[in-house]
Order: sequence, then C-alpha cells, then structure tokens
Amino acid sequence: MTATPHLIGLDWGTSSLRAQLFDAQGAVLETRSRPWGIMHVPDGDFAAAYRTLVGDWREARPNLPAIACGMVGSRGGWREVPYADCPADVHSLAAGLLRLDTGCGELHLVPGVMQRGALPNVLRGEETQVFGALELEPDLAAEALLVLPGTHSKWVRVRDGRLTDFATYMTGELFAVLREHSILGRPAAEAGPEANAEAFRLGLVTARDAGAEGLFGRLFTARSRVLAGELGAAHSLDYLSGLLIGEELRSQVAALKGAPCPPLVLIGDAALCQRYRDALALFDIHQVRLLEQATRAGLWRLAQAAGLLPITGDSHA
Amino acid sequence: MTATPHLIGLDWGTSSLRAQLFDAQGAVLETRSRPWGIMHVPDGDFAAAYRTLVGDWREARPNLPAIACGMVGSRGGWREVPYADCPADVHSLAAGLLRLDTGCGELHLVPGVMQRGALPNVLRGEETQVFGALELEPDLAAEALLVLPGTHSKWVRVRDGRLTDFATYMTGELFAVLREHSILGRPAAEAGPEANAEAFRLGLVTARDAGAEGLFGRLFTARSRVLAGELGAAHSLDYLSGLLIGEELRSQVAALKGAPCPPLVLIGDAALCQRYRDALALFDIHQVRLLEQATRAGLWRLAQAAGLLPITGDSHA
Repeated sequence: MTATPHLIGLDWGTSSLRAQLFDAQGAVLETRSRPWGIMHVPDGDFAAAYRTLVGDWREARPNLPAIACGMVGSRGGWREVPYADCPADVHSLAAGLLRLDTGCGELHLVPGVMQRGALPNVLRGEETQVFGALELEPDLAAEALLVLPGTHSKWVRVRDGRLTDFATYMTGELFAVLREHSILGRPAAEAGPEANAEAFRLGLVTARDAGAEGLFGRLFTARSRVLAGELGAAHSLDYLSGLLIGEELRSQVAALKGAPCPPLVLIGDAALCQRYRDALALFDIHQVRLLEQATRAGLWRLAQAAGLLPITGDSHA
Repeated sequence: MTATPHLIGLDWGTSSLRAQLFDAQGAVLETRSRPWGIMHVPDGDFAAAYRTLVGDWREARPNLPAIACGMVGSRGGWREVPYADCPADVHSLAAGLLRLDTGCGELHLVPGVMQRGALPNVLRGEETQVFGALELEPDLAAEALLVLPGTHSKWVRVRDGRLTDFATYMTGELFAVLREHSILGRPAAEAGPEANAEAFRLGLVTARDAGAEGLFGRLFTARSRVLAGELGAAHSLDYLSGLLIGEELRSQVAALKGAPCPPLVLIGDAALCQRYRDALALFDIHQVRLLEQATRAGLWRLAQAAGLLPITGDSHA
C-alpha cells in the first residue's frame, strides 16, 4: 500500500529550499531540495520555483495543504509575514500564518517572532525548529534552553510550552567576515588554513577566562599569538572560531547569573552542534542533547495547530 | 636668523608618511607628508620614497640624524625591527633602534613593543606616542592610562616612566568590516547614512548596560532595532559605532575591578578623541585630557635618549 500524502512542508531559507511530503502521521514520504535560497531563486520568480519543485505533488492531490517556514516570509522573500509577538506558542504562530495564493494552490507562510522591549530581537525560521523540538521531546516544554548555532546563533528560552525570550549571536557571520576581510584572516590565508583541535580549544579557553571584560580586548590575540610564535598561522582560524564560540558561551553563562543551566538542546548541523557540545564541556555544561529533524516536526506541528490537518492521537511516526 | 636643523623625524604608518624637520630645541621647522603608507609606497621602493621626501634636507646637512617610527619597521615595511620587551622605557626602546643604511644616510627605526605571557600583544608606533606624551606632560610618568583610539585602539598603562602593559581593541577595523561586509551595514547603505548623536549615545548605553554578558549578544540590535522601528536605518551606523566604542569602554572599566581610573589621556585624531571623551562621560570618567603632537615629541625624545642629539636642558619649545 502506498501511503497517502497529507502535507507539503517547505523549509525555505537564505541559502536553500527543501520540500518534504508528509504522510498521515507526519512521517516523510519524499524530500526534494534545490539551492534556491531566497537570494538565489531563478529570475527571482518564487512562484515558478515553487511550481517546479512541488507542482506534481499538488496536481496529484489538489487539496493537499502546504506550509513554509524561514526567510521566504521576510521582506526579501516571497511575501513579508508580520512577526508574531514574544512570548509565542504554537497557537499564536498558527494564528499568524499568512495565506498566499501561489497560482499553484495556497501556501501558508509561518511568521517569525519579534521580541519587543528594552532589547528588540527577531527570529524567522527558528520558531519552527523550536516547536518541532518540543514535539520530538515533550519534556522540554516545561523549561529548556534551545541553542541553534549558525550564521546567527539563537539561544531560545522555553517555559510552559512558550517561546519566552531569545538572544542572537552573530558568531557564524562574524567568523566569515573576519576571516575574509580583517587582518585576523591573513595569517591563515598566507599559510593555508589547517584544522587544529588544540587551537580551537585555546580560543575557547581564552574567551572563557576573559571574565567580565569579555572578548573584545582579546580578539586581536588571533594575530598577536601568531606574531609571538605561540600559534601556527595555519591554525589561527580554528583559534578564531574558538574565540567567537567561546565568547557566545561565556556571555550566556554570565546571563545565568549562577543559576543552574536549564536542559540544553543543540539543534542544527551535526558537525557544528558537536563543536558546540565540546565547547560547552569547557564551561562545565555536560548534559547536552543534540536534535535533528526539528524543522520537519515543527512544520507538522504548526500545520496541525492551524487546522490544516486532521488531529490524530499519534501525530508523528 | 634661520634655525639650524637638528633632526629628521618620520612617522611612517600603514596609510601615510610624514616627515618633520626639528630645530635644536625639538620645535618643528618644516613638515611634509605623502600618502605613501607602507602599503602604498610607489613601486614598493622605500629608499626612493625616502629620498624623494627628505633627500634635500640630507644633502644640505649630511650629518643630520634621522629617526622613523611606525609600521615602516614591521614585516611588511622597509625592514623588520624586532620588538622591544614589555615593560619598556625610552632607554630600552632607544637601545633597540635599528640602523638602516638608506643609500641617503642612516635612518634609525624605532622598535615596537611585545607583551609576552598569558596574553601576547604587540604595538608598533604607539610606543613613540606614549613617550611623547610623557615628554609633553611629565606628571603622567608616575601613573597613567593612555588611550590611542583608531583602527586598532590601544590602552596603554604607564607606571614609573615605563610602558608596563597594554590592550588592543579592533574597534575601528571591526566598524569598517561590519559596515562594508555584514548584514549590520545594509540598513544604512540602503537608506543613506546620516550622523546622529542620539543613535551613537543609544549604542554606548546598550553596550554599557550589557554588564558581564558583554556586547556579543547585543551586536545584532544594530539590525533588530531598525526592524522594530526604534532606530532609523540612516542612523544605524552611528548606533553601531556607539556599540563598539561602548564595548571597548565597558571592557576597560571592568578591567579596573572597581579601582579608580588612573589619569586618562586620549591621544590622536581630535574628532575621534572627542567622540571617546563624550563616551567616557557616560561611564562616569570625566577627567580626560586630549593630546596632539605626541608622535613628534616622542621621536625627539627617543632620538635624544639614543644619543643622536646633544642633550639640552629644555628639550622642546
């Protein structure tokens, strides 16, 4: 027996587009992806890209609901979806879905979340991963710290099933920008960069031990340690990566103000999550879970909360 | 009566070359400059650039001593001068001068300073400004904090006439790199940047109030405040400048660990020093002096300490 498709779920971000076809229990029947992130949609024609990727799925079942999360709902995407307010839960996000007529059926775009107040902040795409994580590991709903490392790392607090607040660290972007355009990238560019776990660790420890002074006055050590003969030029990028990830962790540990760390979950690329797990151990945070498939589970959960699907007892396989 | 030249002093940095002719008391008889920083020396021919700029001075008085500070003594300069060790004083720097035969007389290159130990650090050029400042304001020699803002800001501690330790902040370079190459530069690039004192102040206060968490998790507010409608896109660069300068100050105030700030002197570009003075006031540091001409006075003092000049009672006019 061939399972019947029940939902099309899209993860449409800055650099890629991925579509999944779900069965009645939220299991994935088929996955397709293209390098058509919102900056790279052929001719900027989102409708054509959408039709090319999933048109046959929709033709086969014209009433199949479809949902998309990520930067596709930003100003530079297909259609801007207003942010949901923080705190947010699955129901407020579901209520904020924007229905878009694609010319190939309706597509529901998931809103991002805006944190207002003294320190405004925004996320878009991560909200779906967060509620996917709670779907996959329901014990996290009571209280958790969800870490989504990447270009812009997000540290998201969850309490009582709600996304209560979050912080953004531009760690990945800073690393890329400093490597390509600052004096800190030169030693490795000239020597040819080589991965080096000890250099990464030294960077982490240097940031950790900066205490309240923070990293800012130690960033230059990615160059001065090379000049002092302490750090191989080829290893200086791994050191820089350690400095930046280390400062991200130092800052978040400082934000705990001595309170115990809530259950911590890393979500995202497996190799990057492993790098963060190793780093967290140096900050005495050892109970760390890694989660994949959070976006898939989140799209399913939001579609369900929005009434796009019949609610079943066992929602995912 | 025409005063007799006694010394040629060069400030030869990354972006420019300046030569001054000194009289017997260290007063400047003539100044010349060219945009021939070490990266922009015509044909990379340092000797030709030197001869073009000061050849006539040397021909008129063949025994005129000459001294140069700055990146001209770095690996990418004319000749690499080994760093003097920290702590450093005028005598150890004078002892470390490198005598270079230019083909147009001898030129003495001032060494930079290397701080060894747990956090290696280097400076090159600032050592001359520091000892120039002590020459201009002798009361600083007992204890002072000399701040040289710029591409790489240096915070230099002086005690008992010695340069004891220093920190580097890549504030200017970070600002330029983030403006040109990161997502934080985009709002202003699209709107057209406008100076805005209130945005600068908001950036300073945001960094100051980050406390031990530091700026890293708040850098993204240069974008999110625009998205939240709180900050004009055109003003976001002044906000970013406030964030970065604010973090530099926050970090240095944290390094004081509650001790009173030593006499603080800002050295360098007048407009930038004024920006730092305004910023320091928000950190309750109000006793701030501004100094110009520190390089000139430092070159004179080092030449004197090296025995290139007769020692006089009143060394500068």
